Amino acid sequence: MDAHGRGQADPPALSEDDLLAAIRKLLSGEGPGVEVGVGDDAAVVELGKHPLVLTTDLLVEGVHFDRALSSPHDLGYKALSVNVSDVAAMGGSPRVALVGLAVRAPLEGAFVMELYGGLLEAGEEYAVSVVGGDTSRGEGVVISVTVVGEVAKGQAVLRSGASAGDRLVVTGTLGGAAGGLRVARAGPSGAHGALGTAWARVLLERHARPVARVGEGQTLAQAGATAMIDVSDGLALDLSRLCAESGVGARVAEGSVPVEPALLEGASVVGVDPLELALSGGEDYELLATIAPEAVEGTARKLVERFGTPLTDIGEVTEEGLRIVDPDGRERELEPRGWDHFA
Amino acid sequence: MDAHGRGQADPPALSEDDLLAAIRKLLSGEGPGVEVGVGDDAAVVELGKHPLVLTTDLLVEGVHFDRALSSPHDLGYKALSVNVSDVAAMGGSPRVALVGLAVRAPLEGAFVMELYGGLLEAGEEYAVSVVGGDTSRGEGVVISVTVVGEVAKGQAVLRSGASAGDRLVVTGTLGGAAGGLRVARAGPSGAHGALGTAWARVLLERHARPVARVGEGQTLAQAGATAMIDVSDGLALDLSRLCAESGVGARVAEGSVPVEPALLEGASVVGVDPLELALSGGEDYELLATIAPEAVEGTARKLVERFGTPLTDIGEVTEEGLRIVDPDGRERELEPRGWDHFA
Repeated sequence: MDAHGRGQADPPALSEDDLLAAIRKLLSGEGPGVEVGVGDDAAVVELGKHPLVLTTDLLVEGVHFDRALSSPHDLGYKALSVNVSDVAAMGGSPRVALVGLAVRAPLEGAFVMELYGGLLEAGEEYAVSVVGGDTSRGEGVVISVTVVGEVAKGQAVLRSGASAGDRLVVTGTLGGAAGGLRVARAGPSGAHGALGTAWARVLLERHARPVARVGEGQTLAQAGATAMIDVSDGLALDLSRLCAESGVGARVAEGSVPVEPALLEGASVVGVDPLELALSGGEDYELLATIAPEAVEGTARKLVERFGTPLTDIGEVTEEGLRIVDPDGRERELEPRGWDHFA
Repeated sequence: MDAHGRGQADPPALSEDDLLAAIRKLLSGEGPGVEVGVGDDAAVVELGKHPLVLTTDLLVEGVHFDRALSSPHDLGYKALSVNVSDVAAMGGSPRVALVGLAVRAPLEGAFVMELYGGLLEAGEEYAVSVVGGDTSRGEGVVISVTVVGEVAKGQAVLRSGASAGDRLVVTGTLGGAAGGLRVARAGPSGAHGALGTAWARVLLERHARPVARVGEGQTLAQAGATAMIDVSDGLALDLSRLCAESGVGARVAEGSVPVEPALLEGASVVGVDPLELALSGGEDYELLATIAPEAVEGTARKLVERFGTPLTDIGEVTEEGLRIVDPDGRERELEPRGWDHFA
């Protein structure tokens, strides 16, 4: 339990208005199109004339994060990233965010301000203005973020457009976030004492500060991706969702799954099966898309050129079933296991 | 503790995807401009070309509500109303809502579905489409609603535009919601046994199902309201916020404060000071606005004609200070007390 855990001395209590004033000061740098930011009944924002993309995600203490393992700054960063990732998975551009925050009483003012610091850092990275918020006490910390963005009319990439014959492609690498969570849980005094290694730092970063693939999602949309989803709950589970929505199946080539290299390096120390984490670990926030075979190579080249992000062909869309083929050609069922927030 | 309290037998657990499928079915009636509703990574909505009005509010179990006193349906209704009220307080038109919901594990599927039923009922009333949601387990129930609406360019009514000489006006009546909370807390076996009376029913309704003043807010905006805020935390506290934002003071005529008649009728039975609840009780979701003296009468007439809602002149905007004048002309400070979510 770190300095942010339950064991600390109670910080001085602030009134709601005191806290709002502090948050407002922090958020006073308004962004493009923001006519009214934090501090009034509602925000007023003028976007372009495109359709809106809207998404909301909760991060709940004890379910999505453990305050002993994540700094408030990183939590804020992550809370925005995971929502931006949903906009990215539509091929959209995120614009503004609203934040609802429940914290324990007496109010943890320092925690809230650090969390907002992380939200703002992510906001700068994604060019997203935080325009509204509501903060309340609660039994545990709950962070609710809503992101509103834009997408060109008719260009949103849904989960439902995949057809048999499309290729399955995924950005970046998988399993790193789940590996990082395991490294963090072992802690500095953990048996494997790996915190100082480069691979452990990479994995911890993947867990603590996931990066949403906004430009990559737009490029995939422009390249004609037929369906897209972000890998939040694990490749197998999110692929099963995409397939269910599209009414198709998929066959994944096990040897093609882009397992995070740092996870391969540290897996034996951490004591995990890297392929298992890559398939079912979740929280990588990479994009999984389906695309015409002839578009794969050019799109992969663009993603590397523009963003330095690899795009890997991991298999094909089929008529039905969810299968995985090992390097020896043996096919088995790919179980849609992964992160279930109620499990 | 009612059937929804902690004491009940655990309902059957659903997986997250099971629950999402059930919610999605419930929300399948899409609204105007909704291109993609619940069920994909994000919603896609095409609104008009007006600036957006955006607001988010949390309702936290044990802070904003007690499940022994509110049905899940009413909680859903209220959660949408309080957000729509923030849009109304800008003079805007609400369009779409997103819902984040944390519930205890094992998942309370029936609670979630009833809550969504209330959200949808309010959505129909306000012509707001529920286009997105995220549901997770948590330590207690947290309902986070975000509403996105529209407002004509340059027409949003902020808290900051009041000038000395403006009149203070308020829609509807005050104190009813706080009175209803006290009736609910006393319960059917409460000492005053008032649940069957007409006044008690009115108060309970005011508490359980507040109605946002959307049309009234737009009419006030069109009438040139210089500042506006919704009375969520009590007239005194919300007036102090409006004054602080505008850099002005206010003098309220005590005898003009529109105390809810049902509260006046039942106050002695419930054992409360009706004026005190009207000034500091909170949760009435009426609109408090400032407006030029010559516009008061015509605007009040329009509000009655269009919506059957009274508009009461309760005092004036001054250079500084927050004062209240009793019917004998004695002036005292109006303390900005009210509902503080951290108190």
